[in-house]
Parts: sequence; C-alpha cells; structure tokens
Amino acid sequence: MGRAVGSWRRATLACVLVLVLVLVLLAGTRALENGLARTPTMGWLHWERFLCSTDCASDPLSCVSEQLFMQMADLMVSDGWKDVGYEYVCIDDCWMSLTRDNQDRLQPDPERFPSGIRKLADYVHSKGLKLGIYGDVGNKTCAGFPGSYGHYDLDAQTFADWGVDLLKFDGCNYGTQDQLAEGYRNMSLALNKTGRSIVYSCEWPLYMRPMQRLVIGNFGLSWDQQLTQMALWAIMAAPLLMSNDLRHISPQAKWLLQNKDVIAINQDPLGKQGYRITKDNNFELWERPLSGGTYAVAVMNRQEIGGPQIFSFSTSFLGNGLACNPACSIQQILPTSEDWGLHNWVSFLNIKVNPTGTVLLKVVVIGESPAEKPVMNINKKPSPDIL
Amino acid sequence: MGRAVGSWRRATLACVLVLVLVLVLLAGTRALENGLARTPTMGWLHWERFLCSTDCASDPLSCVSEQLFMQMADLMVSDGWKDVGYEYVCIDDCWMSLTRDNQDRLQPDPERFPSGIRKLADYVHSKGLKLGIYGDVGNKTCAGFPGSYGHYDLDAQTFADWGVDLLKFDGCNYGTQDQLAEGYRNMSLALNKTGRSIVYSCEWPLYMRPMQRLVIGNFGLSWDQQLTQMALWAIMAAPLLMSNDLRHISPQAKWLLQNKDVIAINQDPLGKQGYRITKDNNFELWERPLSGGTYAVAVMNRQEIGGPQIFSFSTSFLGNGLACNPACSIQQILPTSEDWGLHNWVSFLNIKVNPTGTVLLKVVVIGESPAEKPVMNINKKPSPDIL
Repeated sequence: MGRAVGSWRRATLACVLVLVLVLVLLAGTRALENGLARTPTMGWLHWERFLCSTDCASDPLSCVSEQLFMQMADLMVSDGWKDVGYEYVCIDDCWMSLTRDNQDRLQPDPERFPSGIRKLADYVHSKGLKLGIYGDVGNKTCAGFPGSYGHYDLDAQTFADWGVDLLKFDGCNYGTQDQLAEGYRNMSLALNKTGRSIVYSCEWPLYMRPMQRLVIGNFGLSWDQQLTQMALWAIMAAPLLMSNDLRHISPQAKWLLQNKDVIAINQDPLGKQGYRITKDNNFELWERPLSGGTYAVAVMNRQEIGGPQIFSFSTSFLGNGLACNPACSIQQILPTSEDWGLHNWVSFLNIKVNPTGTVLLKVVVIGESPAEKPVMNINKKPSPDIL
Repeated sequence: MGRAVGSWRRATLACVLVLVLVLVLLAGTRALENGLARTPTMGWLHWERFLCSTDCASDPLSCVSEQLFMQMADLMVSDGWKDVGYEYVCIDDCWMSLTRDNQDRLQPDPERFPSGIRKLADYVHSKGLKLGIYGDVGNKTCAGFPGSYGHYDLDAQTFADWGVDLLKFDGCNYGTQDQLAEGYRNMSLALNKTGRSIVYSCEWPLYMRPMQRLVIGNFGLSWDQQLTQMALWAIMAAPLLMSNDLRHISPQAKWLLQNKDVIAINQDPLGKQGYRITKDNNFELWERPLSGGTYAVAVMNRQEIGGPQIFSFSTSFLGNGLACNPACSIQQILPTSEDWGLHNWVSFLNIKVNPTGTVLLKVVVIGESPAEKPVMNINKKPSPDIL
C-alpha cells in the first residue's frame, strides 16, 4: 500500500483548491511585469490523484513517472483540454532521486524518469504545452526528497536549463516563519536571474491555512459539490489545475472542467478576484467583476441536508447597485446553461439551489444609450429556472 | 427560505445513518419477544430530505403533508421498493398542530393533514405498507411542536388508536440525562400498554454521539461515499430508512438502495451485528457473521485523496480463522456483482478500493464433508477484480 499518506501532514494540495492566497502571490509575481500568469494558470498536476506512488513495478499505470506525464500531455491535446485553455502539465513531489548528482544538482529518479526532465520538457513542448516541476523551500520536500534550501540559484538554473515553465515551490521542512519568507523571496530572485519565464506557483500561503482535499473528477465529491468547486474557482480567479486521471474521467466531470463559459469567467482579462457580498443562513452570495461591464455571480447553498432551497435577493445587491441599473441580461452558466432574459434594478431573483450546490450566473449590464437599450420585458413571468 | 436549519442543533437524523446504537435499543425491544423488528427496519423517513417544510402554499410538492406521504407510499409500491423489503412510511417532526386538542391529545396540522392520521394510516395499510410517526420525550419536539412529556400514556394510546406501526421518539427539550432515560423507559411501557405492535425507534443514543448528515440519493455524497454508506448499513445491521425524494431519484441510487444482495445481508435472520476486524492506515476491514456459515466482509478506504489503493489481507483474518477453512467461495456484492471463485485458508486477497469507497463481499464457508466439497482451483490466477 506504499507509504502512509496520513503521515504527510503538510502534503501540498493548494494548487488544486480554492487558492485565494496563492493568487495574491501570483499577483505579486505579476507586479514584475514579466508577462506571466496574467490570468490564472490552467493545467494538470499529479498530486491529488497520484500522490507519491513510486512503485512502478506493482503499479505501472499510476506511479509518478515520465510515462504518466507523457500520457497526460497526449490526452490534454487529444481530448480537448488544450483547446479550452489547459496548458501546464505539472509534476509534483516525488519525481526526484534521493540524492543530488555529483555537481550538487537535483536529478530525477533514474528508473522512473530514464529520459530525464529535459527530454520530458521537449516532449511536452512538442505538444504545444508547458511543463511544471516541483521543489521545496526547506531542507527536504514534503515526501523527504532533497529540498532547495541552500541551493536556490543552482536549482532555479537547473530548472531553466531543462526548459521548465512553472515551479510549484512547497514549504515543508523549513525553520522559522521568517526563514520561510526569506526562502520564498530568494527563490523568486533566483528564478528571475535565470532569464527564463517560469511561473512561480508558491505554496507559502498554504502553510498558514487549513486544507481541504477534494477535487473534481475523482472519488470524494458529489456532483453538486463539484459544481460548487468549479464555480468558486471561477469566481476567485483561482488557478485551474486539475488533478485527476485523464485516462478515466467521467463525461460529466469532463463537461464541467471543459465548460467554456466557466473558463471564460476564470480567465477574464480584467484580472479582478471575486468576493462575498452577503451570507444569509446557509446561503452565500458571491460576485466577480469581469471585463466589459459584466459580473459573475455565484449563489452557494452550504446546507448539507434537505432538498433544494430558494435564495431570494434583489438585483440591487449586484455590482454595488450598478449591475442591473437600469437593466441587465442574466445567463445561468451552472448547473446548466440557460437564458434568464432581461431584468432591471427592481428585479427580485428567486434562485433554487441544491444542498452543497451552487448556481453560477453571468450578469451583463445594459446601458442607457439608445444603441444598447433593448426592449425590456421586465414584467415577464420568471422562467421555471428562476422560479 | 423558511426556518434556519442551522439552529436545530439536535435535529434528528439518526435513523438514516449508521445506527449502531439504535440497533442496540431495537435489540432491547426485541428482548420483549413481541415479534417486532427481528431484522432491521426498512422504510422511508421524511426528515433528511424534506426537513420542516410547512409552507404548502409556496412549496406544495415538498411540504410535510399527507399528500407527500401518500405519494411516497404509492411510489414504494409502484417502483419496486416494497418488493425488496422497504415497508415503513415514516413521518418525522413537524406533522403536528402547535397545540393539543380539547382532550389534550396530539393532533396533526389541519391544513397539511386535513384527513387526519387515522385516514393516512388506512391509506398506507391499503398499500400493504406500515406507517411511522414522530414524537419527542421532552416538553417540545426539536422543531418546537408539542412534546410528549407528561403525556406518554395518552400519546401512545393516540398513536395506537390511529393505527400507527412505528414511533420515532426524539430527545429534544428534556431535562437531565436521568430524566431523559426515564422518559424513554416510560414511553416504552406506554407503547406496550396499548396492546398494539408499534416499533419503538428510539433516538436516545443519538444524543450521546456526534452526527453525520448525508444519505444516499440526495446531493451531498459522491458515488463511492454512497457505496460505503450502504455497505456499512448492511454490515452494521442498521435500519434501512431512506430519506430522499422517490419522485426524483437517480437510477444509480435506486439500484444501490434496491440491491437485493445487500438487503439480504442487512436483513440476515441471524441478527448479529458486524464489527471491525482491523484498521491499517486508511483501510478498515469489517465483517458480519450471517446465517448458514456465511460472512459479509467490507473493505473500506477512508482516504479522501489519491487514486484507488490496494488492501491486502489473508483469508485467515475472516471469521476468526474459520471462514475459509478449509475453503470458501467469495462473491463481490459492491461496487458490482462479481464471482471471485474459490479460495482457501492460505489465500491472500488484494482488493482495490476507491478513495472514500468500499468493496463489499460475501464469503461462503465450504465444509469438508464430501457432499459439500467441490473441486477447488485454489491456484487459479486472481481475476482482474481481485488484482
């Protein structure tokens, strides 16, 4: 059964979760104006699904090996993932050899990555994709492989030499919080010194927050919970890093992860993060300003029992009172795509949401200029979806 | 949105969960040798899905009303639920009027139950089913309706007069733990005094345990989690009381809840409860002795992340070393029905289980008498299911 995962108290999953704080860090990187991560990173990361599976003899299809990443790269192209924006194929912990090479450089496990990372990067690039790799700010990675402490410049240069495009930098086995902060800053400088464009996916904030562990396309989330996860990722402008088995993914999960309307919200070029407007018992109302006078709105039902419940609110709640003033058109994005038609500043929405589920909307402001002003039917009966 | 469910700290869901302790109480009732609940109760209970929905004007299809119970009774017959053993249609909290009648008797809400409980019981009986009702040991029910404290004899007689077949007796709004215990005992005596056979579904143990809230066929459980719930219900000889919307239930959830092999384990006439044999990291191995020298065995993977993992154990673990001695045949019941063929006392099983999922097996002991001894192929290659 391999190593006990329960003992990995700091095993890192943040990239694939609600990464509010990581985005703050990415925003920090963006402040360097190096053109990277202008919108949330999209891709695939091995951790949540494949963990530290290193025994290729007994589990050849699931061990962390170059074969696994090549297969995922192939599927990202053949199964439409690349077309909708997923770009990074990311290696997580457990790719390394237990020792550095004779020049003190990190090296991959020779049996699981016989061709080396440079060759793997070439393969991934040949598919029009990018390669992510993993390191740790401390003395050892979370799984006990060599950490980058004391080797930041060398490791950054090694990754650059290999043609790596993203570094997930974990925070296990560090000293004090101050040392941790200094380590993250130093690796940031080291990456910039290489001259290569490498997205810095920084796990630092994870070490100040509790964790959740479940992601779309695997075994632990109900359909409504998967809808909630995808909607909140979009609202929060979180990196869309899947961690599932693209060889075995349900059509339903694939539909959700490839949903172009949701991805468009996540990738909106305005780059603003969403926020919660209000909380009322078990319901939460979130919104995210998008480019072009548009808002994404999520209504989440946190209740776990009972049947679908209705959350009622005035459109004046949205966009600080401006989203539907004087009018707006509303499109439901999740759980299904539906047109809710035109509404105005006195409209009242009654939205039915399943327990643990979320309804995601796109609200387009309609201005007063004659050219833009359509004939509004604000007294029309609400559709069954609006109840 | 109705009343805030979050404030119902003691809202009761035990019947539809892993009811180890309730079974102990049912066993206590069985000790009266009144013929009731010789095997775990099977049926449907409104709470987890419909809660205290009392506003029939705005939500006619989901409010707690005689219509709802009549519809569920109809569906229990027409959709095969009765055929596989589900028998009790159970009313939970919120059926009552806020006041007792002029003879101090409990009475149903006149708008939601205009025909009265007696008529509803007649209807349910006409379908070959039985009716369950709800009361509370304290001054008020969990939702604030009249409690039975000080009226145990009267309420028991009222339920008997109406033709009720099961009482779920809740434990809200009591005084001390001693008073609670005395109240439960007194209602037990009161029910026996009526002379009518009424199953006593006693919530008392719930008030000493933390709660979980999710059940098969609703919104909050993934498929693997539903498999685990059903398998553990069977192993624990727990009452099979669904709480879902039989008008809208997925074919997959229906298949699971109507699975005759699982129900046969749950309803096994030997009446022994299962127990955990061992725990190894994230895996738990459970077994339940069944009639006819048979064992139900469940392998549960409690890990929430990662991919399917293999749990390996010797058949000598099972049945205190006797289940496969000298030989046994093994049938996989969940997640799918598969024949694993013959094994013996030195066989080793390698069972792959999804995260949060469970594999449920039935192990039939094969004795040494010539008549029973088949030709064994104990060296045969394990099937793909056994890996």
